[in-house]
Parts: sequence; structure tokens; C-alpha cells
Amino acid sequence: MNGAECLLRTLLANDVDLCLMNPGTSEMQFVSALDRVPRMRGVLGLFEGVCSGAADGYARMTGKPAATLLHLGPGLANALANLHNARKARSPVVNIVGEHSTQHRGFDAPLTTDIEAFARPVSAWVLTLDCATAMGEAASAAVAAALEPPGKVATLIVPADFSWSEAGEPGCPAPRPSRRLPPTGQIRAAACALRSGQAAVGLLLSGGALQARGLRAAERLRAATGVRIFADRHAARMTRGGGIPAVERIPYFPEQAQELLAGFERLILVEARPPVSFFGYPGMRSSLAPAGCAFDVLASEDQDGAGALECLAEELDARPRRSAASGLSPGLSPEPSRPALPTGEPLTAAAVARTVAALAPEGAILSDETVSCSGQIWPHLAGAARHDFLPVTGGAIGQGLPVALGAALACPGRKVVALEADGSAMYTMQSLWTMARERLDVTIVILANRRYRILDIEMRRTGAGAVGPRAGEMIDLSHPEPDWIKLAEGFGVQAVRAATADEFIREFGAAIREPGPRLIEAVLDPA
Amino acid sequence: MNGAECLLRTLLANDVDLCLMNPGTSEMQFVSALDRVPRMRGVLGLFEGVCSGAADGYARMTGKPAATLLHLGPGLANALANLHNARKARSPVVNIVGEHSTQHRGFDAPLTTDIEAFARPVSAWVLTLDCATAMGEAASAAVAAALEPPGKVATLIVPADFSWSEAGEPGCPAPRPSRRLPPTGQIRAAACALRSGQAAVGLLLSGGALQARGLRAAERLRAATGVRIFADRHAARMTRGGGIPAVERIPYFPEQAQELLAGFERLILVEARPPVSFFGYPGMRSSLAPAGCAFDVLASEDQDGAGALECLAEELDARPRRSAASGLSPGLSPEPSRPALPTGEPLTAAAVARTVAALAPEGAILSDETVSCSGQIWPHLAGAARHDFLPVTGGAIGQGLPVALGAALACPGRKVVALEADGSAMYTMQSLWTMARERLDVTIVILANRRYRILDIEMRRTGAGAVGPRAGEMIDLSHPEPDWIKLAEGFGVQAVRAATADEFIREFGAAIREPGPRLIEAVLDPA
Repeated sequence: MNGAECLLRTLLANDVDLCLMNPGTSEMQFVSALDRVPRMRGVLGLFEGVCSGAADGYARMTGKPAATLLHLGPGLANALANLHNARKARSPVVNIVGEHSTQHRGFDAPLTTDIEAFARPVSAWVLTLDCATAMGEAASAAVAAALEPPGKVATLIVPADFSWSEAGEPGCPAPRPSRRLPPTGQIRAAACALRSGQAAVGLLLSGGALQARGLRAAERLRAATGVRIFADRHAARMTRGGGIPAVERIPYFPEQAQELLAGFERLILVEARPPVSFFGYPGMRSSLAPAGCAFDVLASEDQDGAGALECLAEELDARPRRSAASGLSPGLSPEPSRPALPTGEPLTAAAVARTVAALAPEGAILSDETVSCSGQIWPHLAGAARHDFLPVTGGAIGQGLPVALGAALACPGRKVVALEADGSAMYTMQSLWTMARERLDVTIVILANRRYRILDIEMRRTGAGAVGPRAGEMIDLSHPEPDWIKLAEGFGVQAVRAATADEFIREFGAAIREPGPRLIEAVLDPA
Repeated sequence: MNGAECLLRTLLANDVDLCLMNPGTSEMQFVSALDRVPRMRGVLGLFEGVCSGAADGYARMTGKPAATLLHLGPGLANALANLHNARKARSPVVNIVGEHSTQHRGFDAPLTTDIEAFARPVSAWVLTLDCATAMGEAASAAVAAALEPPGKVATLIVPADFSWSEAGEPGCPAPRPSRRLPPTGQIRAAACALRSGQAAVGLLLSGGALQARGLRAAERLRAATGVRIFADRHAARMTRGGGIPAVERIPYFPEQAQELLAGFERLILVEARPPVSFFGYPGMRSSLAPAGCAFDVLASEDQDGAGALECLAEELDARPRRSAASGLSPGLSPEPSRPALPTGEPLTAAAVARTVAALAPEGAILSDETVSCSGQIWPHLAGAARHDFLPVTGGAIGQGLPVALGAALACPGRKVVALEADGSAMYTMQSLWTMARERLDVTIVILANRRYRILDIEMRRTGAGAVGPRAGEMIDLSHPEPDWIKLAEGFGVQAVRAATADEFIREFGAAIREPGPRLIEAVLDPA
């Protein structure tokens, strides 16, 4: 079989069965091979950032990589921003990037670029294939690299002649490394810190520790020792609502985060790193923990944080104290109830959030890229039915829609809600077309304030002072006002506008009841 | 003054007065400084590839750089594909990329990336500023690097604290290097080759040699010696129509190009490189010139090709023989006349081209990214009034709309026509919003065939055989059909659909008569 078919079959042997693609001439053999390898699902994106962001969303929900298929250096370049986000999300991703055929590479044709140079800053593993018969082995190595805990971006660059040449048999499936428990010493050290009776110890969770198992073990520790439990703001995925134990999320602005963490002398890290500010500001510390705060590592990023929390709970004899209904420790953190619908109110970000929390079904997946609105949205979602929350990880704008797309491909039975700002939705809006084509069950909510609102705030914070008229133009999205109804319909997605909370309640309710992609432009009250 | 103001003032001192931006927190000081430095024009793009592509289009028409202002590594990443195109166009561009403040850089915050690594593959010059007081000097050096012939991409990375710190006075304007004539020996060698009487000598023009002055000198040489004149297919800009001497453009497909160049024993290069195939194909040579063809360099890329052609014409005593009306050598290449309108015909790419050629006004600027249709369009445009043609340079898709946007910013008095394929227009469609906001005089024609049509052709050419049903899905844009009317109107651009040649003639005529952005979706006849 030729190299392209060998590669697809090797990916399948490694349980990689989704390929998100925007192919060109140098990838034609891979596209052609889809007809001979029907188990590989090809999904077309009209822009490469859609593909890479969707691979991130898919990985967050499945723990396994999707492949992307990208056209030479420029195709990879268009995927980089969301590969950066995937890297920060610790998502396993396998990029297949076509390259000019080996005899063509030296001619400096128009599309010739240094593909490896583009790939390296976002990839833990980069290989340019050097002969067709190495295809199977290389593809298995790429999957193995992607799956190395906690999850990596791997990039395999394939000269076109190696996809059209004879390549032999597919590669053997790579061993699938699993996360290991930390050594006993790490667990005992954390136990010691918690036992010492210091009030000033906190647990900071990230990675896999923020799903149900880890959160339940953390809750046992909290009930037994009073330890405060914090969540990394930019962890890839967090399970929440419906009786899942609540934790305190580190705020975005460093003043608030530093206030939250003030007085802590020791933070125990569970798949987390010491918390840092998103941006640096004049005269402000970047570290969010107090000066002199010590850090213990209970579980490193590549270790099993949930398992470590359970071991730690055992070590401290912190028994499960389940209420019959919810698994929550009763009396300590009263389970938030679904918020009341904001009937009759103006449409604010909080009203959107309360509606989502009230109406989103059990098992929903919420992708959040609402930027300046996220602080108003987060608290209300605590009352929602159990859901997975997929936040911004690397901060490269244009993540939310593709991540929602990938999550919907990963979890066809679950409702996906993409909460988007009107600024950030613009970067990878082509996602809407793929959602329509694949009939994915995604409700997109555009929180429209016609402005890069966060920059009004950041302008002051960076010491640049009040926003003058010409500066204001560079932050303004109101002339012309993008019409998200037309944009969505232009991509084949049904869309509607809501300007009051009542309208939003009605439209969001309708979107939740009916499967398939639907966009609601929530025009926020300017007051 | 702070570093941001110092940078803007230094750019102005260097005659750089346009900044295409998509800023974030780390660039707030630059945005704020726009109110203190009113001569700097800020233009907002909703995606970074819009900014970099517009800088390319602006440079092609003015010969001078615009600045881009990009947000950290991911912002630069989104601009890379069009920076690749700008590099291949030899366009001067100055990128200003914000970086985390120096005290924040070491903390591995979410947006931390290796910005220099992203910049290097597309930039001839990269510098990360290392103190605020070096701002003026560094900004002047960036402009000087961008202007180094034939035109380069320069990237200046500015940690945020250097834009908010005291930076002193603006930098001195950098010397503006100009293109030099080649040494006399190069001109004499070319003259010798042409004098030898060999029929098998051709001139291959690129760069600045493809504007009026160079083309007129080349025509004198053709009239005097019979030498064939070829144009680099991917040169940034070519003046054409309205009596500008015609040249033969190298075809896209290597078979056709190799047939055109068969029998040539010597090619004289004028700002051109030996011609190569766009892609490599199984069993096909990448070089387009015959094996054994010798190359003489009359002018290298950084030399004055038009001047060199004039010197060569002098050396060969090839006198101007102007017809009174057009400057054309009469009798040798009859001036093409404006084509007849395709009244009553089905709407094909050729019908679009004939309409454009018949109706586009003198001085129009035509940006072409029609991909599979470009071969049917090019011949008909020969009959248009004098215009500048801006083709694909680096082959990274998503170039056409931003280049048209930049050309319109550069030349407010001239009509810009963007000829786009429905596939390629998707990548940087956010350009439409900036065209609407800045009320630019751009007519966008979307040639809609609902398919990545070129890939049907390339599939066969790369030996991948017939397009199977699943492969066909990955090339198909018809389900759902993007609705370009809604997409354009969603961005604030007036739009209309044409399904027959008569409808297209009417709508294109209306767009030509009225200034401002307008999009016509030309639904091509499937027959």
C-alpha cells in the first residue's frame, strides 16, 4: 500500500479515527485514501485553525488524539494559534503536515517554508519523514508522543512522494502510556502538611484532577481537614454542577487572585503549576501566591492527580460522607440550586448565565470564550446540572468555537453550548460551516457588546490611561455592527437574535430542545 | 515620551504612517499613543491575517512598508500565512509584536510562546527589544531592514514594559537604500547573448521590471532582436492593459510551462529566478526551463531591473518606436482591444473576465486569487484598460481579500477589484468588515463553484486517481452552500448574486460606477 494509506491504517491501529482536515495538493493521496480506509472519519474545515481547535476540544473530551491534515507550512501556520491552546490544555494532537516532494523541496517553489520551524514552538515532537517505508513506524511514534502524559502536540511532516510511494505494512500500535500515581513520599509529604494543623494550606488542582473523581476526593480532604480547594483557571476541562463538589477558581485579575490566596503559606499542587497572572502589569507581581509561599507537589502534570488525591484521603483517613442524592458532603458546602430564570430583566451576561444554568441539560458541555463577560458568567453556572466546562487555556483568541466543534464530534449524545464574545468568535468563525455540515448539536451564544470590552479595562490597567477617541476606534466593533444572524445563516446555521432576557430564555430553551447547530446573538444591555 | 509613542513617532519619521492592527493587552500603550500621534493611521482588522495581507497589498502599490501591530506569539501566528506571501512578494513590512513585560516573561503564563521562533521563517530581520531607550533606534532599524531591496519582512518584538517606560526621543530616519543598476558587465553579457543571433534566448521578468517602464524597455528589445519576453507568474505586481506592452506569463501547470519554454537555450533573468513548478508531481521535473538551459542574470532581485532593461536597450541601440496613442511598438504585437461583453451567455469564469476587462476603469487594481479559474481569466484581462494586476505570490490561501484591502488603503483614488474563489475567500473573510468600516472602493467578485475545484485536478495529477465519494466530500463546498450575500452583509458590505452573464454585467457595472465596497457572488455555470 502507498504511504498515505499506510499512515491512515496506522492511525486507526492506534485508535485515532478522526482526521480534521484542510488539504491541498500535497495531501491529495491522504484524501484519496479515505475511500480505501472507510473507518477513518474525515471532517473538513474551511480554515486550519478550525481543525486544530477542534482537535483540542476532541482531546479534552476523549483523552485521545484526533489527527489534523494540514497543507504545507502556511496550512500549519494557520493552525498554530489553536495548537498553542491545545499545548496549554495538555491535549494530545497528531498533526500530519504535507510537504513538497523530496525532489521538489530544493527549488524554493512559492509554498516552500521551514515547516519544522513553525511546528517546534507548539510541538513536543516533530519529525520530517525521510523515507516512505518509515511511514508506519513514524505514525505510531507520533501517536505515542501525543499520548505521553499529560498529553502533547506531535507533528509529522510528510513529503508528498512518501505518500504516493510504496510504504509496506502499517505500523504496530504504540504502547499507550498511562498516568502513574506519585511515589508514596509525595503523598506522605502532603499528608504531613495537612496534618500539621496549619490553617494556611491550600490545594490547587488542575488537569485530570478537576473531573468528578478528583473533586470528590478533594472534597473528602476538605471535610476532614478544612483545607481550601482551588482550581487552575486555565485547566482544559472541569466537571461542575449537579452535586459535583465545588472548588474556588483562581480569578483572572491578579489583585483578586492575590487577595484570594493572601495568607496561604503552602500550596499543594495537583497536576498544577504555581499560579501566575495572565499578563504582567506595571508595579504588580506576576506570582499569585504570596511571597514566601511554599509549594508541595502532590502530583505532577504527568501523574494521576485524582488517584493521588484518593491516596491522600486514605492516608488522612478522610472517609467519603456521601449524601444519598448527590455525593456531596452535607452541611459543609450547600449544593447550589438551579438559578431562577431572569424573566423580565434586561439582557446582561449574568442573565445569559442564569438562563444557561437553569436550562442546560445534564451532561452538557460548555465551551467558554466570553473574555470580559466570563467573570459574570462563572458563578451562576455552579447551579447548573452536571456539566463539563471547557475554558480558555492558552489565551490565543479563536479557541471557543472550534473547541465546541471538537467536543461535539467527541460526544454525539451530549448538548454542547459555546459561550462566545462577539470579538473572539470572529477569529475562527468558519467553524460554523463545519457544525452545519456535520449537523452537530451545538448551541452558540454570541454575547454581543460590539467591543473588545476587555481592552477598555486592560488599557487602564497597563497604565495607558483613559481611552481616547482614536484609541477607542481600535477597540470598537460597532461600525459596522457585525450581523451574527446573517453570518451564521451564511454558513448554514440557523440563527436568531435576543435583546431581552425573555427573548433569550425563549430562544435558548428552543435551542436546547432541538438538536443541531443554532446560534443566538445575545445583544447585551449597554447599561 | 514612553516607548509606544517613541515607536510611533519613529515610524512616522521613517514615512511609515499606516498601522494595521489587532491589538491586545500587551499592545495597549501603542493604541493609546494613537491619540497623541494623530498622523499615524490605525486600521483595525478582526483577524491578524487581514492585517499582514493588507500590509502586503499596501507595499505592492506604494513600495513602502505599513506596520502591523500584533498580539504576542499567537497574534503573529495568525499573521504568518500572509507574511509568507509578503515575503515571496518581496514586500517591505514592519511587524510590531507585543511581548509580555520582561518581569513576566519567565513565568510561563498562558500566552507565553517563543515569538522569535514564529517570526524567523518569514522575516529577514527579527529583534526583541532589550531596553526601552533602544526603541527609537530599533524601530528605524526595522524600517531600514524592511526597505532593503527588494523588500523584506522585519519583525520587532516589544516587551510591554518598554512601551510603558520612558524611552527618550524618536530614532533618526534610517537611510533609504535604493535599487542600483547592475554592473556594466552584466548588461554587456546580456547584450552579447542577444546579439549572438541565437533564436533561443528569452527574457524572464519579475519584480519591478513588470511595471510600465520595464515592460516598455523589454518591448524595445523584442522589437529590435525578436527576443521572447516572459513574466514570472508569481511576481507581486504587473502593469497590464491599455497599451502596456504584453508579455507571456509562465503557466501554472508544469507541462504547459515546459512546452512554452521548450527549445530555449538561454534565459536572461531580470529580478527573476529560474522558473520552477508550483508543486512536484510523480515523474515530472520541477525546473520549467529545458535541461541544459543557461541562465544569465541581467538584474538580480535587489537591482533595478527596469533600469537594466533600458541600459540593455541602449547597448543594443533598440530605440523607442512609439505609436502616438499607446506607446506600443506598432505592427509587432497588436494591441488587444476591450473584449465584447458576454451578453446572453452563461456565467463562466471567462464571462466574468470579459466583463471585468470591458468595464474596469483605467487605473484599476486587480487582486487575483481565483485558483482554478485563473487560467480562464488571465487572457481576457489583456484587453482591459491599463491596470495593475496583483497575483498569488507565496501560494498561502487567504491572500486576495487582504491584498485588495491594502491596495485600496494605498490608492484611494483607484478602483480595486478582488477576484476570489469561494474556497480561498473563506480564509480571511474578516477583511470585508474592514473594507466596510474604512469605506474602501473595492469590488469583490466571488467566483462560486462550490468546490475546491483545483483539487479535483491535482488529485489526478499527483497520481491519486479518480475522486471517490469520501474524498469528494473533502473537496466539496456545496453542503451547506455558503451564502456569500449573507456573509458579506453580515460584515456590513452590500452584496448581490449573479447567475447569468447578463446579471453579472449589470451588477459589475453598478459596482464600478459607485464607490465603496460591494460584493458580487458570481454563481458559475456548472456546465
